[in-house]
Amino acid sequence: MKKNIGSVLALYPMPLTVIGSEGEDGKINWMLAGHVGIIGHDKIMVSMHKAHFSNRGIRANKILSVNLVDENLLPAADYVGSVSALKVDKSSVFAWHRGNNGAPVIEKAPLSMVCRVVDNYETETFDNFICTIESTLVAEDALTPQGKIDYGRLKPVLFEMPTYSYLKTGEVIGKCLDFAKEYKNKEEK
Amino acid sequence: MKKNIGSVLALYPMPLTVIGSEGEDGKINWMLAGHVGIIGHDKIMVSMHKAHFSNRGIRANKILSVNLVDENLLPAADYVGSVSALKVDKSSVFAWHRGNNGAPVIEKAPLSMVCRVVDNYETETFDNFICTIESTLVAEDALTPQGKIDYGRLKPVLFEMPTYSYLKTGEVIGKCLDFAKEYKNKEEK
Repeated sequence: MKKNIGSVLALYPMPLTVIGSEGEDGKINWMLAGHVGIIGHDKIMVSMHKAHFSNRGIRANKILSVNLVDENLLPAADYVGSVSALKVDKSSVFAWHRGNNGAPVIEKAPLSMVCRVVDNYETETFDNFICTIESTLVAEDALTPQGKIDYGRLKPVLFEMPTYSYLKTGEVIGKCLDFAKEYKNKEEK
Repeated sequence: MKKNIGSVLALYPMPLTVIGSEGEDGKINWMLAGHVGIIGHDKIMVSMHKAHFSNRGIRANKILSVNLVDENLLPAADYVGSVSALKVDKSSVFAWHRGNNGAPVIEKAPLSMVCRVVDNYETETFDNFICTIESTLVAEDALTPQGKIDYGRLKPVLFEMPTYSYLKTGEVIGKCLDFAKEYKNKEEK
């Protein structure tokens, strides 16, 4: 039996990310974001409340990095999610370098996408930055021998709002389209 | 060391969903979607290639359901992702009922959001439907005693494109903001 719990944002778990950006004053900032998305086959979306300090710089210079978080990085990532750059300078929380378009990238993140903001799907209180990906930096030990990203080894930390928790990425179940065959075989019996 | 693998869509894993909708001809259809997102604190986004049959009905009647997938549901979900409604009638793949706004909902999905499309952030080849959530139906055994969704028990199947695989949702690591304390304690030593 299912229970109707009302209008609840329940599209979880989502990959936890740290958004790297640079303020108009040249100061590097890090912001935690769990409300993200994929647009089509080539763009990502980062939803950021307009009250965040990071939004100003991103609106001005149109670049940011999206860094996935593993369990090693989680304490520092959770920390940047707990304090506002309006009150605390978070520029030195992570060792970083510049991506190919200048966006600051976390040295120890297992995967970073260096992005350019090409649009803003603005809602009343949120900037929803639509981004193209200019380069993708991946820890070498999280790549398959064929050079593809192995999420089963990278194990991104996941986020969910309803009980405000982090979860592990679990093991690989199998390949897409392999389960369809199982369904069809059953149907044909 | 990190390796630059170029412009790769890498914001994964994402929750796998089956989108339920009704065609203008009154036929129910099911479509697999792994490219979704969260906008602010109250809306979700579903990115659907314009070639899909489902888009027509959703554009016309503005309602859909977003059903999370668990491992029991995976074979049928993968199947609806493997064939087009333009060629095969998928209306009877799942037992279903209507949600409060009329959108078809999968009976056995562990979690379903009954949604209304309030906008379309259209790109060249994709409809990116922006939806509000009118009701959320959850399997009772996936709720905490306080009535919150327990993703550690619900265990949504996750999707990633780079190796085209499904992954498990793993166990809960801990509560948000608890790890920030750990970071601050270390910094203060």
